[in-house]
Amino acid sequence: MLLTIDHVGIACRNIDATIERYVSVFGLSVVSRETNTEQGVLEAMLATDSGSSYVQLLEPLAPDTPVGKFLERRGEGMHHVGYVVADVSAALAEIGTAGVRLIDSRPRHGSMGASIAFLHPGDLGGVLTELVQPVR
Amino acid sequence: MLLTIDHVGIACRNIDATIERYVSVFGLSVVSRETNTEQGVLEAMLATDSGSSYVQLLEPLAPDTPVGKFLERRGEGMHHVGYVVADVSAALAEIGTAGVRLIDSRPRHGSMGASIAFLHPGDLGGVLTELVQPVR
Repeated sequence: MLLTIDHVGIACRNIDATIERYVSVFGLSVVSRETNTEQGVLEAMLATDSGSSYVQLLEPLAPDTPVGKFLERRGEGMHHVGYVVADVSAALAEIGTAGVRLIDSRPRHGSMGASIAFLHPGDLGGVLTELVQPVR
Repeated sequence: MLLTIDHVGIACRNIDATIERYVSVFGLSVVSRETNTEQGVLEAMLATDSGSSYVQLLEPLAPDTPVGKFLERRGEGMHHVGYVVADVSAALAEIGTAGVRLIDSRPRHGSMGASIAFLHPGDLGGVLTELVQPVR
């Protein structure tokens, strides 16, 4: 069901400074920058050399957002992991019957036009887990 | 330099229960189980369907180990991310000159025979980062 790791999502306080750091140290390429008002974040996708997995940087638009609260509670660091699936809706149906709580019972819009859904960390070893169906 | 994401490392209290969960929910395949006394952990590598990226589960051998202390401080969850590089030694030399503190100044042994090295989270947005040169 999980085809490969799509990205790691990293919560940071200053997305410009963190992009600069990851680009200058590792030579990653910035392939997308978006403002996601629904999730309350500035996002950047930085591609690894393969072009098929990403570092996703997230800066909260306000303290009272999920990523803002995460930063307040835990500081900067890994926020979630995203896996590529062929069909988010089909995966959600299967995972729901396996007893994992779904944060999103239906797909919604993610970075770079993908359909995404989040799964509850409490049922997955404390890991906020995202399913990603990329645009073809 | 970073070819792709190799794995996410997840700290857990009970590796058998967490393997069972990830296998039953996602159909991941257990491709390796090891005891790493140097790092004080039981490790399992669970392959995604692509066979080229992994969920790494880590259970501490004792409370007074890096992963044991992580669990005490933060609870279960993502502990680090590992990226594939062609040559760990060459990557360390380059990264060191970019001003990132190296936890390992020389490669050491990781899961499945890989050469690995860790980089300091304080210089990378709070993310403990591992370089992985897999066995050919």
